[in-house]
Amino acid sequence: MEFSLKEIADLLEGTVEGDENQRINSLGRIEKAGKGKIAFLANPKYEKYIYSSKATAVIVKNDFEPKEPINTNLIRVEDPYSSFTAILEEYQRLQSLVKKGKEKPARIGKKTSIGKDLYLGAFAYVGNNCKIGNNVKIHPQAFIGDNVTIGDNTIIFPGAKICTGTEIGTHCTIHPGAVIGSDGFGFAPQEDGSYVPIPQVGNVVIENHVSIGANATVDCATMGSTIIRSGVKIDNLVQVAHNVEIGEHTVIAAQAGVSGSAKIGKYCVVGGQAGITGHLTIHDKTGISGKAGIMSSTKKEGTKLMGMIAFDYKDCLRSYAVYKNLPEFQKRIEQLEEKIVNLPTN
Amino acid sequence: MEFSLKEIADLLEGTVEGDENQRINSLGRIEKAGKGKIAFLANPKYEKYIYSSKATAVIVKNDFEPKEPINTNLIRVEDPYSSFTAILEEYQRLQSLVKKGKEKPARIGKKTSIGKDLYLGAFAYVGNNCKIGNNVKIHPQAFIGDNVTIGDNTIIFPGAKICTGTEIGTHCTIHPGAVIGSDGFGFAPQEDGSYVPIPQVGNVVIENHVSIGANATVDCATMGSTIIRSGVKIDNLVQVAHNVEIGEHTVIAAQAGVSGSAKIGKYCVVGGQAGITGHLTIHDKTGISGKAGIMSSTKKEGTKLMGMIAFDYKDCLRSYAVYKNLPEFQKRIEQLEEKIVNLPTN
Amino acid sequence: MEFSLKEIADLLEGTVEGDENQRINSLGRIEKAGKGKIAFLANPKYEKYIYSSKATAVIVKNDFEPKEPINTNLIRVEDPYSSFTAILEEYQRLQSLVKKGKEKPARIGKKTSIGKDLYLGAFAYVGNNCKIGNNVKIHPQAFIGDNVTIGDNTIIFPGAKICTGTEIGTHCTIHPGAVIGSDGFGFAPQEDGSYVPIPQVGNVVIENHVSIGANATVDCATMGSTIIRSGVKIDNLVQVAHNVEIGEHTVIAAQAGVSGSAKIGKYCVVGGQAGITGHLTIHDKTGISGKAGIMSSTKKEGTKLMGMIAFDYKDCLRSYAVYKNLPEFQKRIEQLEEKIVNLPTN
Repeated sequence: MEFSLKEIADLLEGTVEGDENQRINSLGRIEKAGKGKIAFLANPKYEKYIYSSKATAVIVKNDFEPKEPINTNLIRVEDPYSSFTAILEEYQRLQSLVKKGKEKPARIGKKTSIGKDLYLGAFAYVGNNCKIGNNVKIHPQAFIGDNVTIGDNTIIFPGAKICTGTEIGTHCTIHPGAVIGSDGFGFAPQEDGSYVPIPQVGNVVIENHVSIGANATVDCATMGSTIIRSGVKIDNLVQVAHNVEIGEHTVIAAQAGVSGSAKIGKYCVVGGQAGITGHLTIHDKTGISGKAGIMSSTKKEGTKLMGMIAFDYKDCLRSYAVYKNLPEFQKRIEQLEEKIVNLPTN
Repeated sequence: MEFSLKEIADLLEGTVEGDENQRINSLGRIEKAGKGKIAFLANPKYEKYIYSSKATAVIVKNDFEPKEPINTNLIRVEDPYSSFTAILEEYQRLQSLVKKGKEKPARIGKKTSIGKDLYLGAFAYVGNNCKIGNNVKIHPQAFIGDNVTIGDNTIIFPGAKICTGTEIGTHCTIHPGAVIGSDGFGFAPQEDGSYVPIPQVGNVVIENHVSIGANATVDCATMGSTIIRSGVKIDNLVQVAHNVEIGEHTVIAAQAGVSGSAKIGKYCVVGGQAGITGHLTIHDKTGISGKAGIMSSTKKEGTKLMGMIAFDYKDCLRSYAVYKNLPEFQKRIEQLEEKIVNLPTN
Repeated sequence: MEFSLKEIADLLEGTVEGDENQRINSLGRIEKAGKGKIAFLANPKYEKYIYSSKATAVIVKNDFEPKEPINTNLIRVEDPYSSFTAILEEYQRLQSLVKKGKEKPARIGKKTSIGKDLYLGAFAYVGNNCKIGNNVKIHPQAFIGDNVTIGDNTIIFPGAKICTGTEIGTHCTIHPGAVIGSDGFGFAPQEDGSYVPIPQVGNVVIENHVSIGANATVDCATMGSTIIRSGVKIDNLVQVAHNVEIGEHTVIAAQAGVSGSAKIGKYCVVGGQAGITGHLTIHDKTGISGKAGIMSSTKKEGTKLMGMIAFDYKDCLRSYAVYKNLPEFQKRIEQLEEKIVNLPTN
């Protein structure tokens, strides 16, 4: 995608100072952007970079007065930062729309209905009895099993796997390599110490505006559904086990894991590499530190937790501060013991 | 797949009360199941749900007497829970058999032998000189490298990658996106601080009835084999490094990692996000807590370990209990020091 | 690939003792290698195995004198270990070259340039406007997005995904299932507690001789580039977030994670499952233990760090030693308190 500076200025209701026919195809930082890129200058701290900038254009304030000669084109606007964000959004919106049509070979199963403006990348596989909404983008090598529902404006990135029976809402993004709806880890221990797999016949339900990170895994329920509510954002390499429910607008950072049947509330923030054991309930607005291990249900909303077996965040930091000095405390206890021995007794 | 209530009652040696021609296509919980689903009622605690159940049928005990009107069909059996489990198993067995034949396009290399009842999904790739057993299901977009052996009744799910030379036994399940037999992480440090890759010419051997989770990784041996013994169950996103050996019927939960050349015994249970360092031996029946870090070999069978540098599970919990009160202990030591100072000396 | 013993002896400047027309196709350990394999004997501790070895040939020292009859062929060389390593390297070099040509179906986009000796596996996808160097091996089912650059002699293994705009240098290895250049995890919190995605328009730049492990994820920058410098080795299931920079010859073990905008120096070693928070700087030659949590920038080169909130490695081990005895210290404090109470006061 390429745009002339005039097109961009029109979008931003700004004015071009320089050659309005120059074309840009990407965005960058003022200190690094080169030919074909547009940058912005909002913070005066960065003004020095504009005098040597090799960007094709820089967005500046209407009242910006250069103190030295400038080699780049300017687009003058009311608020450069907001304008730049607006371009970013427009750029990404256009990018998401740019892919259309069916590349070959790709496979669409029987009795599968498809909305308009589909993108179906080459080597993508769509099973039988699926319902695919409007403006859905199924990138190359993505896998959609049988009986899957995908809502409008959802993007399935390359190589993501959406297994049988999964229901995905609108405006969701499933990143490359994510696996949604694979069998849960359920095995019944036998008397001889071996395990027999418990059939996993449930599914995964993902509501709207959900993002699932690259190579993350969300298992299907043993029965019923593993549920990811609207607005949830899950980062790369996160594990969500069978029958978990994650409440609206909760954010889970990379490599965290949630064990089977845990129920996590709304507006929670789960740090990277945290682990949440199964069959417990986390209240709304809970904050969980990176690497924390959550072994029991929370007791109320809004707590912040930390530690290998997590407890209150501040208390954990206080304990950790002492922990770092434990060898010193050991010495002090030894000194006390020595002094006590040397004291006169009753 | 759909079954009439009569077919199900015949399978369970039960009797239909209602319309035996109604059809079900899935299973669910009594409190949630809707049209087309079958549920069961075993625990009297759940009896209240049967009176409002929208399931097409509910499996109940032969002697069940409703206290209110019921809108659903009943299937009466001796033991509802066992019957339901029997349906679950039958359902999954039928599901695993339902996929047959070769979808197109798919690729099978030269000198590769294939057993009967193969399912080969579209865009699947099978290399040269492979031996694929009977009733093997290779789902779409799966990758099978050269010189791979796969035993009877094994399922390779979509997008799983089985690299060159891997040997997989019978009745195994490799979940979507798992990578088996990729190069181990072996690099020889050079004098200048850089690293040169050590060629990895070994393979992975997976015995029978093994399950490997979605997006898990099992590296090939530098030389010889990385070995996963019969009955081992490995969850999603687990890492198994080169030259590891995992004993029969050991279970490893999600996101745990095993470093190179570790030898893990039989009947062990490894918790989620646990880490096991390389070149050590873990005895049979060892239990390892979630997030534990195993830094040295165990000394005997059946120990339970916990902690960042793991030690006995109960001792670790005791230490952790004190850890949580460390700031209080700090104060108590300070008070003791103060008191000692104020005491008369000899 | 098969070689006669004569061919191998010529490569090693050694001499064959036995049948020089025998052929080997793989390498193995002296105690396990069977027909068609070659092993070596360097350490006298292993001499006992040569007398029962079933390997087709064993590489031995020029002056090796068997004390018992031997059933295997010998190749006599100056230094058996170096010779074996030489074969390993030659074997792997030949293996990497053996794949050539374009399997069908595969897709190459418009305006994409391709060097010589390409291997393009079936079901691989290469986007538009890419530049692919000489001797690049793109294995089956790999995904290369639009505007991607790949340097000479780089291998993209099956199912790896190289997203739009990524730049990869020469002699790199991207293992199966790795995702390079997926969107970073950037969301702007809204007043109502929900999140809006921040467009991610940057890319990933990978320099030369870099290895990225199976199912690892490297996110693209919000703007600018996520940068992996030359010689970096990243293990399986590692997460590298947006705008991270990793210095030359740094090694990161499996399942470690690096948060957004962290800058890691050269020659660092990061242990498995370690986590590094965002927006900090790690000096060159830093050593980070497995499972460590790095919460703040380092202050100088060459430190070694350990612990949930990491501090000096040796101090952490000392604190941990006391931690393991905390229940005992609790008792000693209680005893002190009791004794103090029983002492005469001033």
